[in-house]
Order: sequence, then structure tokens, then C-alpha cells
Amino acid sequence: MKSFIEYGPECEFPLENLPYGIFSTTDNPKPRPGVAIGDQVLDLGVIKSLFCGPLMSKSSHVFDEESLNGLMSLGKSAWLECRETLQKVLSASESVLRDSPLRHTAFVPSSKCRMHLPAKIGDYTDFYSSIDHATNVGTMFRGKDNALMPNWKYLPVGYHGRASSIVVSGTPIRRPTGQSCPVDDKPPIFGPCKLLDFELEMAFLVGTGNQFGSPIPISEAQDHIFGCVLMNDWSARDIQKWEYVPLGPFLAKNFGTTISPWVVTLAALEPFLQPNYNQDPKPFPYLVHDDPFTFDIPLTVSIKPETSPEETTVCKSNFKFMYWTMKQQLAHHTITGCNTNPGDLLASGTISGPSEDSFGSMLELSWRGSKPIPMSDGSTRTFLKDGDEVVIRGAAQGNGYKVGFGKCSGVVLPAISH
Amino acid sequence: MKSFIEYGPECEFPLENLPYGIFSTTDNPKPRPGVAIGDQVLDLGVIKSLFCGPLMSKSSHVFDEESLNGLMSLGKSAWLECRETLQKVLSASESVLRDSPLRHTAFVPSSKCRMHLPAKIGDYTDFYSSIDHATNVGTMFRGKDNALMPNWKYLPVGYHGRASSIVVSGTPIRRPTGQSCPVDDKPPIFGPCKLLDFELEMAFLVGTGNQFGSPIPISEAQDHIFGCVLMNDWSARDIQKWEYVPLGPFLAKNFGTTISPWVVTLAALEPFLQPNYNQDPKPFPYLVHDDPFTFDIPLTVSIKPETSPEETTVCKSNFKFMYWTMKQQLAHHTITGCNTNPGDLLASGTISGPSEDSFGSMLELSWRGSKPIPMSDGSTRTFLKDGDEVVIRGAAQGNGYKVGFGKCSGVVLPAISH
Ligand SMILES: [Ca+2]
Ligand SMILES: [Ca+2]
Ligand SMILES: [Mg+2]
Ligand SMILES: [Mg+2]
Ligand code: NI
Repeated sequence: MKSFIEYGPECEFPLENLPYGIFSTTDNPKPRPGVAIGDQVLDLGVIKSLFCGPLMSKSSHVFDEESLNGLMSLGKSAWLECRETLQKVLSASESVLRDSPLRHTAFVPSSKCRMHLPAKIGDYTDFYSSIDHATNVGTMFRGKDNALMPNWKYLPVGYHGRASSIVVSGTPIRRPTGQSCPVDDKPPIFGPCKLLDFELEMAFLVGTGNQFGSPIPISEAQDHIFGCVLMNDWSARDIQKWEYVPLGPFLAKNFGTTISPWVVTLAALEPFLQPNYNQDPKPFPYLVHDDPFTFDIPLTVSIKPETSPEETTVCKSNFKFMYWTMKQQLAHHTITGCNTNPGDLLASGTISGPSEDSFGSMLELSWRGSKPIPMSDGSTRTFLKDGDEVVIRGAAQGNGYKVGFGKCSGVVLPAISH
Repeated sequence: MKSFIEYGPECEFPLENLPYGIFSTTDNPKPRPGVAIGDQVLDLGVIKSLFCGPLMSKSSHVFDEESLNGLMSLGKSAWLECRETLQKVLSASESVLRDSPLRHTAFVPSSKCRMHLPAKIGDYTDFYSSIDHATNVGTMFRGKDNALMPNWKYLPVGYHGRASSIVVSGTPIRRPTGQSCPVDDKPPIFGPCKLLDFELEMAFLVGTGNQFGSPIPISEAQDHIFGCVLMNDWSARDIQKWEYVPLGPFLAKNFGTTISPWVVTLAALEPFLQPNYNQDPKPFPYLVHDDPFTFDIPLTVSIKPETSPEETTVCKSNFKFMYWTMKQQLAHHTITGCNTNPGDLLASGTISGPSEDSFGSMLELSWRGSKPIPMSDGSTRTFLKDGDEVVIRGAAQGNGYKVGFGKCSGVVLPAISH
């Protein structure tokens, strides 16, 4: 597969990928849908007339919208037709765009694009589906024998998160201020968070939703999923510990959640399917599917201290470490009749693997602060410092090509003084 | 205060109230903003030209929108000007609307209106701010001595809820299906919820929001609050008990949350202010305000069994029983920098008072099912049965008038079979 747009084998955005995003430029500040190819962004509104398939020819107005919600709501057949058209018109052997005057206005260098949130996210849910992460955290707080709660292997534990504070990669994150209780049985204190953390996650965007009162059967769950992004669920561990009993995390998670701007479609991820985690006990039938829906996507987290020119990679994990699949998460979320909408975001929870260098949070990497992590500039970290940039990356390795997500990054700003 | 629209002293929608809602009619199915007055709804789009104050004359296009979000985003000065104009043009002594041909098209009988959700709710948060409710639940599950968690008196405990499944009064609620674990240490079971409950709550709508990273100071919190609705936070107690550890309620609360269609403004509620709960320990300064912001609003919950012609009132409570005020909830919610938007919904949590007949849920009224509650048809309830209609009402008593909320109701439909 070769495009007339040139790139090398390490490029994260080859013809096999074609992720969607919302971008704007200095010349045209209107946010609009684009597709990443090589180091270019293809402006979909400009090439609307090339979508001449039976579904997209009637619906190409979605490329005039300021979010991907319109495209997502068209459904799986339209997404596949759209992808087919894009792979065709971008291919080296096809002249329709390559030799057209459209070509001059259709492409913008990525470096000149400002990226926006890809979707209007109505509701955001965060799961807790990595068994290594849940075991690590459980071991720290309840000991090895009670690490996993009794419900954990029966259902994908999750909670509703804050949608308004989801921001796109590159948005600085202000260190939050709040209450914590550093000494049990003493009164709490108020001040800037001292235990600021990242959480390495992936998340999927619902394409087509379901009606209020009508669960999504597991056999159809796949068709409702549009694509995936990288996510950093910034977490204030000291605030969380004090506030979360008995109703769950609240302020410790609502001061910012960063996602990557490019949405990699399920179709692009299909070559990286691999067998599911062996689930024992076997879940209830509404959660059972036999087809593989686990993805081999290597993930890394790096920290770049403010004064250092260099990043240090602190975590090497993989999306394949998930115990619960995205299909199981969506079937579970809707089993009560909860409705979902195009643009809803469902996140994996922190993705930790079995080895110590694969843990997806500083809480685990530094084992509650007891084990400082060395940076390449000679400093160490147990939790995040002001000025630290946290960068999450992910790319699946194909045969001679990569399918990547780009960066999901953010810099920690100092707390505001109260 | 007298309007040319006539009503008696028991009417919930006198000239002193003027709640906003979104309605449509058979003749004109477009949802649009209206104000309730007596047994009529005033169609605000029809009388746009009468808003000639400096703020609303420029902004009366908000009355063409399908939600109140536009009006809410205009800010407090505009809301007050709007109210002043409405009280003037609706007064018995003012001819501008009374004697205008507009009058024939401006009013629709409430009985002919279909009500819709008043706002596009971006994010929904549920607090847990009634001390009697928290103490009751804590006593049931942890015993009297550990009833309140250590954090409870230091901060308004809350959690993010599901916005997509908030529905307007009158929408039937399907009994959810899910996992529960009736016998500890035995495996869970799957099936229809057996312990379906209501939660008597009130909720406020954010008018103007705040920017990402900029907390709302407690001194300004009041200006961000547009108005209040009644709410039923339907809850599946058996599902909740099994799923909620350690991240809080999820499916047990996301199958439907009902709100009343009419938004009663803060200005209309001001006459019912009364002293705040005496908070000991004194909260951190970011949560302290000395002005009263507790409201005397009597509330009731009734159940009408499917086969009975009569409702039975099972709960008489009052919004004044809140320990934490709405201002404290909003200041707390944003202290980390979490941004809010017009239309965000912040709910009180179950409102229970000190007496047994004031408890705001069947969980408390039946004390975990141990004390059946008699219905007027001779049946009893510990939790809700299929066909039960749950009706929440609330009205403050003024001097010769009432300020009411209308009904917040929903019928329980049987579970779907899987
Ligand atoms: Ca998380
Ligand atoms: Ca509640
Ligand atoms: Mg977050
Ligand atoms: Mg609810
Ligand atoms: Ni939301």
C-alpha cells in the first residue's frame, strides 16, 4: 500500500492508518475534520466531492462540522466506505486527487495545524480494566491477599468521569488545590496537591449510540465503536485518598483529562488483534464474546523535566494487558438501559503490565513514593513536579508499517495561590 | 402582586414564581422556551419584542432556542432584567400584553403542552449533602458509631453522574437488569433489580460557567446559579451494593434520573431563605459563607401503585435539611479548576430530615426492607414494584402565595427479559 504522499516505515500515519481529527490553521481558524497522512493533514471539507460512494455521497456535509460527531453518527458502513474512498484517492496509483488542482488546497503540513478535541464528548466513563493495575493498587492499600475486590473479575468496574475538563494534547494542566489528610485520624489540610500523577490509558469513542432503555448486546458492541485515542487521566493521589470514600473519585480526577487529537479507527487497528485475556471465572453471558478483541499496541510514558532537554521513558506498557475488552465495557455500561451517544468517551483505566517497568502510573512505578525513579538529567521523581511534561505515545507495528496515535502530552503548571 | 392571568392562592405558578421550561405543542412541535403562569404557559418567542431592557433587547434570540442554555449563559443581570420584564408585562395593571393581539397567541394552556428537558446538560454531579441521609445509610452499613465517614463534615462529598440518561418528568423508567450479590462470599447473580428505589433530591442548573483552571470563589458562587428543579435519582440498591467498591455508584444510577420540567429561579426562591446548618467543624475558608443560603421548601414523595386510583405520601421532607449549601457545592466542585458550563446539573443528594417520615428513599423509610410501608390500597412496599408511579412535589409557602416546582414523576416499567 503506497500513497503519493511520501513517508518512511517509521511514520505513524501511513495509508494503513488514516486517523481522523479536528484541526484549524492560521489562514482558516474554523475547526474542521482532517485525516493525517505522512506529515500532512488532508482537509476533508476540501475533497468532499470525491466521496462518491452510496453512503458518503449523501453525507459528506459531516466534513463541514466542527467535530467528528456527525461522521461518527453515520454508522459503521459509512465509516468503512469513507476509509475505502480515502485509501483509494490517496494511493500512489490513483490520479483523481494526485493530479487534481484540489491537491494544492487539500493538504496542510501537520506542523501548521492546531489540533482541537476530536469530538463533543457528552459523557465520559473511566474503567479499571487492567488486572495488573488493580492488583498493584489493591496490594498497596489492602495487602496482597485482598488486592482484587470480589466484584473485579465479574464485571468491568468503572465510574462516571467529568466530561467538561477533557482537553486535547498540548493543553497545560494546572496543579490542583484541594483537601487532603496526610495523617490518618488528624484533621485534613488544604493546599496544592503534593502527589500529582499521570495515568496511562486508552479510550474509545462511541460512534453510534443506543436508545434509553435498550442495552447494546455484546454481539453488536463492536459496530458502535468508532475508534481509539490515547489518554492521560491526571490524578491527585492525596486529594483522592481523602475524598473518595464512599462515592468514588471526584475532584482528584476532574481538573483535567488529556486525550490525543487523532482518532485511530477500529478498521486500522484490526491487524493488531490478538487473543483475549483468559477470564476465570467465566463472565455472565451478556459479557461473553469468543472473538479476539484485544489489541497489541505498545505504549510508552515519558517525562521531560522543565529544565532538561531530554525526556526519560518511565513506562513501557501495552494495550494488550487489558483483562476486560472494549466490547465488554460497552455491553456492561448499557446493560441497565443506559443510553450512549456519538462522541461518548469510554476509557480503559490505567494500563499496567506484569513487569515493574510497565506500570502505568507514578503511584505504581514509585510504589507509593518509596522508590524514586531516575531521570536522565540526574533528578528523580516519585510524583510529578511543576514544569514536567508528560508524554504518552502508542504505535502498533505492522508488517513494514506502523499505526500510531501521535502524542498525548501536557505540561504541569504550578498551583494558583489562594 | 396580581396578574391578568387568574389563579388561586394554592397555585404553584403565580407572578412571584415565573419558572422557565421548554415546551412544545401539537400545533407547533418545535421545543421552545416558556414561562409557567397560573395554568398557562407563556411562549417567550412570541413576546420577544416586549423585552426592551438594555440587556434582553439585544439577546431575545435566546427565546428561539430549543433549550434554556442560551438564556442561562447571559448571566445574572440579564436574568433579573428578564424577570422584571415578565412580572411587568404579566401584571394586571399593565396593558402592553393584556390588551394586545399578541395575547391570543402568546399563551398555551399547560394541559396542551408537552414538556422537554429544560437544558442541554453537559455534566451532571450528585452530592450527598443531607446529614440525616448520610447518617442513616452509614448507620445501616457500618453501625451508629462509624455512620459518617471522616471526610463528610469537611467537604461536600459528591460524584460524577451520567448526563445522557437524565429525562424529564413523565418518562417511564425501565427496571434495570444487572449483577448483584445477595449472599456475601457467594458468586453474584444476574437478573432484574430487586431493590429498586427512588431518591428525593433537588438540583440546580449552572447559569454561567467558569473557565478551565479558574475556581469559582464562594463569594461569587451565587451568581453562577440559574435555578432549581426537583429530581428523582432512581437507584438500584442491589446492583449498587455489589458494584460500587472502590470507585462509586455506576450502573446502579445510570438507567434514568428524572427532573421536573420547570426551573424555578434563585430570585423566586429568595423569600424562602433561612439560616444555614450550623457547621462544626468550621469548613476551610474556600467553603465559608455567612449569608443564609438554605431554603425552606417542603417536599413530598408519593407512590401510586398501578392498580390503585390513589397516591400514598410516603415522605415529607424539606430542602432546608441540607448540611452543605449549593454555594459550597459549587465552590468545592471547582476548587481544583474543574470548569462548569451553562446547563450543568448539580444535585443535592437524597434529602432526608431527622424524623422517620422525612426520609428521602425507600432504603431509609423501610430501613433496608425491614419495615414495610403501608399504601392506601392495603398493599405495602419495602422497595418499588413494577407499575408504581413515584411523584415528587415541592412548593414553598409565601405570604398568600406559593412558589412551586410542579411534578417530578415516573412510572416503573417491568424489566426487559434477556
Ligand atoms: Ca483512571
Ligand atoms: Ca443520589
Ligand atoms: Mg481525569
Ligand atoms: Mg440516577
Ligand atoms: Ni457529561
